[in-house]
Order: sequence, then structure tokens, then C-alpha cells
Amino acid sequence: MERYPFHTLVQGELEQVEAILQERPPGQHETIGTAVDHLIGGGGKRLRPTLVLLSGHHCGADMERAVFAAAAVEMLHTATLIHDDLIDGSLIRRSVGTLNARWSPSTTILVGDYIFARAAVLASQANNVRLVQRFAETLATICNGEIRQMFDGRGLSTDRREYEQRIYAKTASLIAMSVESGAILAAASEETTNALRTYGEQLGLAFQIVDDVLDFVADEQTLGKPVGSDLRQGLITLPTLLFLEATPDHSDVRRALSGRPAEATLQRAVAAVACSAAVEQAQEIARAYAEQAIAALDQLADSRYRTALVELAEFTVRRRF
Amino acid sequence: MERYPFHTLVQGELEQVEAILQERPPGQHETIGTAVDHLIGGGGKRLRPTLVLLSGHHCGADMERAVFAAAAVEMLHTATLIHDDLIDGSLIRRSVGTLNARWSPSTTILVGDYIFARAAVLASQANNVRLVQRFAETLATICNGEIRQMFDGRGLSTDRREYEQRIYAKTASLIAMSVESGAILAAASEETTNALRTYGEQLGLAFQIVDDVLDFVADEQTLGKPVGSDLRQGLITLPTLLFLEATPDHSDVRRALSGRPAEATLQRAVAAVACSAAVEQAQEIARAYAEQAIAALDQLADSRYRTALVELAEFTVRRRF
Repeated sequence: MERYPFHTLVQGELEQVEAILQERPPGQHETIGTAVDHLIGGGGKRLRPTLVLLSGHHCGADMERAVFAAAAVEMLHTATLIHDDLIDGSLIRRSVGTLNARWSPSTTILVGDYIFARAAVLASQANNVRLVQRFAETLATICNGEIRQMFDGRGLSTDRREYEQRIYAKTASLIAMSVESGAILAAASEETTNALRTYGEQLGLAFQIVDDVLDFVADEQTLGKPVGSDLRQGLITLPTLLFLEATPDHSDVRRALSGRPAEATLQRAVAAVACSAAVEQAQEIARAYAEQAIAALDQLADSRYRTALVELAEFTVRRRF
Repeated sequence: MERYPFHTLVQGELEQVEAILQERPPGQHETIGTAVDHLIGGGGKRLRPTLVLLSGHHCGADMERAVFAAAAVEMLHTATLIHDDLIDGSLIRRSVGTLNARWSPSTTILVGDYIFARAAVLASQANNVRLVQRFAETLATICNGEIRQMFDGRGLSTDRREYEQRIYAKTASLIAMSVESGAILAAASEETTNALRTYGEQLGLAFQIVDDVLDFVADEQTLGKPVGSDLRQGLITLPTLLFLEATPDHSDVRRALSGRPAEATLQRAVAAVACSAAVEQAQEIARAYAEQAIAALDQLADSRYRTALVELAEFTVRRRF
């Protein structure tokens, strides 16, 4: 696991989470263990488990239970990525090959299903019915959002509200649920739970916008996948959306979004968005969401965990990877 | 919903289960509602919900919670069928077209995932952590069994023990969990819970063997799918396994199981197994499992629900559909 400053306060518990993620239940087919090691062992920021743990500590949750919730959200996140990559035909993620790049669609579907099941087992081990219910509702929100995107035009809408709904379902819902989990496990007051949930929602929106910006401006090695992959897949994210608001008739970008554009057109389109003011505008919008996330924490009592949550939000919009 | 004698005692609750299955949560994409209506509205024996309800009544569970568990097992069963049919390329089930016959693989994957999530939400509404945990473990068992079958030779083994493990994972695990659910919700004694679980396991094995027999001997209209579809997919089930024990070198059956046989060969192979003594032998083995299921109930106190469970096991091996 890579280390980030926001891991410091929960380092010990994060190591327990890693151990749980690497457990192989008896009878589990070796292929699944290989897949989990490949996908989860590859590292990552462990943002979601960290949020469960910081929120849990702040609210006074039983941390022996919280580590299971933390492992569950990371496992659920991984399961959704497996089916996403298969559907999008993505061959690389976090610098490692996707499961569908190695295995048949059938195997990839079943391994994804199994990892959903493992995530649900871990969630139930946190021993709290409300947490399991929120967990299942969040998976429903994620899938529903993807189905909507698939039927209502693969993210081709240039409506900013529609974009926000899309990234809420895709990313912010699970990040919000991660933060909320700590409060649920501690049976915190409704006020505290709602404040943490709002923090998570706003943080999740900021996080996804930064991801969408980095898809244009990061280098491929840092990104772990090709630059401009959203636009290459015909997906309109905030930078493209803002670019088209300013330059509705840009021929390369319009062509990139319609039919099967030539590689040279795609490269020019990605470069046009990446070098435009839309990138800084999108980044500014992400910063505004992060500020709202931090503002939601004002209601909470002071604690070093609250401070860490503030720092994590600041890091989210500052990161270059 | 079709009606069967074993529904009588729980008719009112089964209607509540139907209403729950047909609920459309706010914001749910209309495609999902259409899919659920198509798959679940198509009828079926509602074996699994009935088992939850009969077991729940026998043990004295809160039936307002039990109806959610009953809806959850039916929803989970449906979700597994969606991904199964996609993987097998099946175009028809229960006399209606499968989702993959109408929609793209991507849509079918996502709708299956969403229905897993709905099943988990329903399970959590039964408000019992142990039930949710068993529910998730059962999904893991089902997926693990399918992955094993995929990697270790698509059910081509002629080992009877391997066949039993396969049908345990595929069918008996969820049927056992359905029966166990009633006991879990009532916080029944370990003895009672184990007896009901054993009943469910043996019943599940009997049920799947009868399904495998009917795949050879029922008519297509009753079956709701083509006759001999297992053998056509190169899957060895108990009738074929017993047939090959008696006639290891039967050329049509051997050819049907290797490579891409001609349609005429397949038809002769299906007819050869269907007209052989293997059919009655398999049926006899199913009856033995049903007897073991009934014997497991001997430990329970007498009740009309226990009597219904006995009748349900008898029906399972008597049915011709």
C-alpha cells in the first residue's frame, strides 16, 4: 500500500484492513485470490477505508468493527471497477492490466459477482444492520447511475446538472457512505451523521472532478492509463463540458464525440481541452466542492480526526495523481 | 404467480412478497422495473420464499420481517439467473426470453448487479445481521462454484462427488439458506436451525437432480426451454453421468460432449439418455435425498408448517415440471 499524509492517524487500522482484504476464505477458488491480489494488492490511495476509519474514530465507534466496514467499502469499490472495465473494454487501470484483459467476459463477470459477495460478507461482519442497508442502497445507486448513463446516452449530455448526478452515482455515493459508516457504527446523533454524510458527498464530487481533470492533464505513467481516455470513449466530463460551453463549434472536439474519429483528431481534441481555460475552471469548481465539504465539518466537535478530514479534502483538490 | 398446494398455509404472506418484489424504488431507471417484471412477474413456483415463510412460522419468527427475507431470496435467485443466462448464452427461461436475448451484454451485467443490490437491500430490511451474513456467504458459494466449474472444465467431470458439489453450490446452498432464514429470524435453537438447514440442503440436492432429469424427459412447453439443453451445452448432469457409467463408449453421447457435434448427433444423444435406465436411477437418487430431507425434520416439534415442509419435499420429487 502506498502511504499518504492522511493515513498517519489510522496507520495501524489500515494494516488490519490490508490483512482482511488479503484473506482467502477456505474453499475459495485460487483464481479469485489471484484476481483480488492483482487488483487490490496493486495499491491505491485507500481513500474510502481511510474515511471510514477517521469518521469512526471521530465519532467513537468500536474500531474492531470499523476495520471490517473499511475493508468492505474497498472491496465493493473493487467489484464495481471489475464490471466497469469489462463494459468499457478498458485494458489497464492503476498501471496494471484489468481482469477482462486477461480473462474471458464470463470469468470476469463471475469474479466481479464473487467480489460483491465478499464485500457484503465483510460489511455484515461490522455487525450493524443499518450499515449493511446503506451499503446495499449505495450499490443500487451506483448500478442505477450506470444503467441511466447507458440508456440515456453514455454521458453525452452537456448538461452540468446531469454531469453532477452522474458523478454523484458513480463516485460520491460510495465516498459519502464511507464517511457515514463511521457515524453509523458509533450510533452518532443524526446531526453528526448528516454533517459527515454531507462532507462525504461534497468530497466525492470534488474527487471525481479532479479525476476528470487529471484524465486530461496528468502524464500516462502517473495516471496509470492513457491520457484523455474519457474523451476517447466519447464520455463528456466537466473539462469537455466547460470547453464546449465556451467553444460550442470546435470541430476536433465535436468530431471526437461523434462516430469513429481518426486518432489524429482525437489527439488534437484532447490537447485542445487540456490547454484550454476549462481545465482551471473545472479545478476551481472542484475546490468549491472541497470547501463545502470542509464547511460541513464546522458543526462537529474538534478532534484530530476532524482535522485529518479537513486535510484530506484539501489534499483531494491539490493532488496531481 | 402460479399456485401450488404447498403455498396454502402462507398464501397471505406470499402476496406481500409479490408486492415487495414489484416495488419500484424512487429514481430506479424504468429499464430495471421492466426487467424485474419480465423475470419475476413471469411466475415460477416461489419455492425459496415459501421455504423461508414455512420455516419462519414453524420457529415463531416475526413474519413482518420474514416477508422481506422471502423476497430477498427470490430476488437473489433472479440476479444469479441473469448472469448465468448471459454466460451460457441462453435465450429462453421459464418460457420467456432472457435479458441477454433482448439487451446488450453490458446492460445485462448492470441490471444483474442492480438486482443483487436490491436483494441485499431486502435482506437488510429483515433487520438481522446474521441473516445478511448467511445471505452474502451463500452468494459467495454460488459464484465460487460457477468459477470452479468454468476453470475446472464446464461440468465435464463424470465424478459423482464432483457433481454433488456442483449442484450444492448452484442450487442447494440457496435453498438451504432459505429454510435456515426462518430459524435465524426466530433465533431458534442451534439444534432446530441445523435440522432445518440439513432439510434444506437435502431438498436442494433432490430439487436440482429432478430438474436435471426433467431437462431430458419433460416436453419443451412444460420445461419453458429446449429439451436436453444441458447436454447441448456440454454439461454432464446426473442422468448422463449414470448413463456413461453403464455405457462408457456410447458414440453419440461421447460425440455430443466433445467438440461441436452435429444436430442429428445431439438429438440421438439426448434420446439415448432419455430412454435409458439412467433416468429412473437418477430419479431414485433424488427420492433418497428427499427422504433424508424429511428425516431431518424428525427432530422438530410437530406443527402444520412442519407437515407442509414434508409435503413440499414429496412434491419436489413427484413434480413433472
